Amino acid sequence: MPRRPASTIRPTAPTAARRRPGRPDGSLGDRLAAVRRGELPTEPLPVLRPSVMAPVRRFDRPGPIPGNGGLHPLTDGSANARLQAYDNRVKESFDRIVPVLKRLSALQHESDFVSQAQELARTELGYEVPLPILERAWVTQLDMRSLFAWCLFETYEQLSASFFQEDPLQGQRGSPAAAAFERFLLDCGFHLLDITPCADGRLAHAIAFALRLPYSAVRRRPHAGALFDVENTVQRWIKTEHRRYREAAPNPAHADTRYLKVVLYHFSSLDPQHEGCAAHGSDDALAASCGHKRLQDFQQAVENSFCCGASVDLLLIGIDTDTDAIRVHVPGMDGSTNLERWLDARDVYEATRILSPEEGRRRIHNLVEQAATATPDPGMVRLIARLLENNIAQIDYVRQYYAGHYSDAGHAERFIGVGIGFKEVHLRNLTYFAYMDTVEEGAADLDVGVKIFKGLNVSRGLPIPVVIRFDYSGTVPGARDRAVRSAWRVMEAMRARYADLVAEGLLHVLLTVHDQDRLEPAEAVGSTISFETVGGH
Amino acid sequence: MPRRPASTIRPTAPTAARRRPGRPDGSLGDRLAAVRRGELPTEPLPVLRPSVMAPVRRFDRPGPIPGNGGLHPLTDGSANARLQAYDNRVKESFDRIVPVLKRLSALQHESDFVSQAQELARTELGYEVPLPILERAWVTQLDMRSLFAWCLFETYEQLSASFFQEDPLQGQRGSPAAAAFERFLLDCGFHLLDITPCADGRLAHAIAFALRLPYSAVRRRPHAGALFDVENTVQRWIKTEHRRYREAAPNPAHADTRYLKVVLYHFSSLDPQHEGCAAHGSDDALAASCGHKRLQDFQQAVENSFCCGASVDLLLIGIDTDTDAIRVHVPGMDGSTNLERWLDARDVYEATRILSPEEGRRRIHNLVEQAATATPDPGMVRLIARLLENNIAQIDYVRQYYAGHYSDAGHAERFIGVGIGFKEVHLRNLTYFAYMDTVEEGAADLDVGVKIFKGLNVSRGLPIPVVIRFDYSGTVPGARDRAVRSAWRVMEAMRARYADLVAEGLLHVLLTVHDQDRLEPAEAVGSTISFETVGGH
Repeated sequence: MPRRPASTIRPTAPTAARRRPGRPDGSLGDRLAAVRRGELPTEPLPVLRPSVMAPVRRFDRPGPIPGNGGLHPLTDGSANARLQAYDNRVKESFDRIVPVLKRLSALQHESDFVSQAQELARTELGYEVPLPILERAWVTQLDMRSLFAWCLFETYEQLSASFFQEDPLQGQRGSPAAAAFERFLLDCGFHLLDITPCADGRLAHAIAFALRLPYSAVRRRPHAGALFDVENTVQRWIKTEHRRYREAAPNPAHADTRYLKVVLYHFSSLDPQHEGCAAHGSDDALAASCGHKRLQDFQQAVENSFCCGASVDLLLIGIDTDTDAIRVHVPGMDGSTNLERWLDARDVYEATRILSPEEGRRRIHNLVEQAATATPDPGMVRLIARLLENNIAQIDYVRQYYAGHYSDAGHAERFIGVGIGFKEVHLRNLTYFAYMDTVEEGAADLDVGVKIFKGLNVSRGLPIPVVIRFDYSGTVPGARDRAVRSAWRVMEAMRARYADLVAEGLLHVLLTVHDQDRLEPAEAVGSTISFETVGGH
Repeated sequence: MPRRPASTIRPTAPTAARRRPGRPDGSLGDRLAAVRRGELPTEPLPVLRPSVMAPVRRFDRPGPIPGNGGLHPLTDGSANARLQAYDNRVKESFDRIVPVLKRLSALQHESDFVSQAQELARTELGYEVPLPILERAWVTQLDMRSLFAWCLFETYEQLSASFFQEDPLQGQRGSPAAAAFERFLLDCGFHLLDITPCADGRLAHAIAFALRLPYSAVRRRPHAGALFDVENTVQRWIKTEHRRYREAAPNPAHADTRYLKVVLYHFSSLDPQHEGCAAHGSDDALAASCGHKRLQDFQQAVENSFCCGASVDLLLIGIDTDTDAIRVHVPGMDGSTNLERWLDARDVYEATRILSPEEGRRRIHNLVEQAATATPDPGMVRLIARLLENNIAQIDYVRQYYAGHYSDAGHAERFIGVGIGFKEVHLRNLTYFAYMDTVEEGAADLDVGVKIFKGLNVSRGLPIPVVIRFDYSGTVPGARDRAVRSAWRVMEAMRARYADLVAEGLLHVLLTVHDQDRLEPAEAVGSTISFETVGGH
């Protein structure tokens, strides 16, 4: 309900400046922030009932919440622990590589180097490394770049295998969580939830962590700047509607539900001028307005291209990459979205912090209703309330394990992912995504990724690891072959574009394909790592 | 009805060798060919009624057919004349360019060169040429490469404008011919006719000339070797079915009609080893079997990906690029297609040559039925009979105006068309098409086109003219901008790929976009031709 008179707000859309201390201007967000800073509201907060207002004043010095291990009453602490364990396990498997390779380097001129090396690799990494690389070390020195890339690719393959086989996020197709959320979504009046986060690695965990959604129940299409392709999205809309007509799945076409397209833009509360969205020059107002424009373009494309009242619903959400707290621009039922008004999950957190779960849910529901630009759709309110409730757990997650904000505010990705797919990657800062069919179309995104990795890896003499991935449908004849050819084509285009890096062994590529209809690991079908003897005869 | 015992036919699919003189092996095609060569059949042709067989013997030395100006009774002579006039008019406008430029060259050091040149251009070409090019001629010499490219692009733009404004093929959306054919197609049980000819310029007129179909009533998707993309075609199928569900257009989804996918492969009867399909090494058996395989892949993709008996119908047709005569592999109702059996339009022509139009149509119908691999679908028989009847007019067209076979058996294209669209190009050997979204994906096709034009143009010192084209839907917000950006992207990729040619002025590009929802000419949005003064200050 931040219904601020126009004169009290800045003329452009949201920027993090709004978060700076200052006189509360009357929005719920700012006023609660003032409360948190110890300032008393100058007037009652009219939309909150007095019975609830009183406790608000108590948490101007946030302390542990009684019960639930100091967590918010709506937070599932065991889920947080499980997610953290998974994130740790995967990232440690990547981050163990360099220390082990350093030790190998020190050993490389020992007489029993090969057996020592394999012993060390088995013990520390859990797998052996390629013998040809070890055996050639004595001639000049260990080919550390190839070895690093090989280990990284091996680790990625293990991640992929365990993801599809063990479902660590408990969200795969047919899982209880996925089925429950699909039912809930339909109850809210939506037959598809299609989310476009920014392709930035700091949003790679947005679906499974920040929003706590079962990954298989959501369509995720990351794009740089969250600027999805309108024509492709119309195609996906057609595909979805066709399936409803033909198969009544997930529900019949005549049922009054909508396709919901969400843009998830991002910003940084700690360093708004530098660590926001690079695609929008770290300007979160611009990120929000561009995202909103793209949403409107998509809606208009559907409305103008099809008859019979065809349309889609839209939702704009922002996320703070430092705290993972979201802010939701709650739309009116009339489709209106206000770029300058949102409901901040941190405010929701505080407003419900000492309420029982049931009271808390009711309160969230009310806050969402009041934050809407115009009278909201009840189903939309329910969905947003759920997203906010889920996000509360993530706010606690970041507080529990990262002292309230991530220490890796900048880029710290482990590899670049290129192509289409990557359902198994849901961890923050694990992967820089460059979703593309061709390097020709995606060159700008890819250049950004390479630039990031020049800082992260090349500056240390380590190669940039790139995993190319094309998903295919195993039920379509020849589709796997075409996916393999696409992967090789993209690799060749990358070799041409980054010829200098490739020549120096500073860019290595793993080619993978994946049958999207099956829960099998990604399949490696090629790589730039060669074990051939140089100058062999 | 070429129902030959397996032992009498070669083990592989059709090759033009079959057309060589020799003992008739029993197929209708070969036996009628023998008749044409003056050899008498050794036994009666059992599927033709005796009343018709008698006259067959008469045309072993084909002479003028009585009535209809020596044309086949089913040929519309005035339509042939109209098509020929259009083809002539367009090609002459392209072919006038070089002679005029030669005369300009001879004049370039005259004192009143500029006014003489413009006078000549106006008179001979119908338009003036760019003044900056003329005015700079005295310094060194006339920049003939830029001038040639400029004139060619101007001519293309005029072609595009007159096509959309005057509908010279009388087949635009909403035209009587298009409406009538759409009704006929539905009557035959098909709600969409989707044809993939080879991208070869010698098939660019296949729809409007060889098959005499209203271009707007048919989906044309040329690909090298007629090897269409399965995934894209499934997308188009979904789009078509969705429209039937949502808009009941062209008919409701519950109506029992099918999506018909046609592959049109090609071969050369005069020089089968060299002038067939380059993508299949001039092996027409391979062209047919690859086309058939791709059709089956598409059908299986639809059947495996969708429930409820989803499927499509398939049809394989070959075309002789020397005579434009088609051969149809008539499928059975069970979906079977025999690669080694077809009905040749030239045989149909001869078998109906002296019949009245009504008798002729009945005869064609019977021939199609008898040629089927298994009991055929009646609607399919009607459609194929129509295609054969239409093709008879084209056989006459080639006989009337090209003495039975084209003199330009090889490549003689005037420009390369790159991108998506080109609805206005329906003339043989006018354009080498390279349909593609990206040079990265289409490089192989494009390289072939550039190679062809090195022979046609660069060998004479003339540049390769390339028209890049992206269609867009004007009802989709931002679609035009994206089409323009795609065109520039492809141009940049071409400049990188063919840097040497570009540097020497031997490859020039015109960028165009077109609103597919409107009958407006293609819009030029950029070009490589620069009029800037070199070293200007």
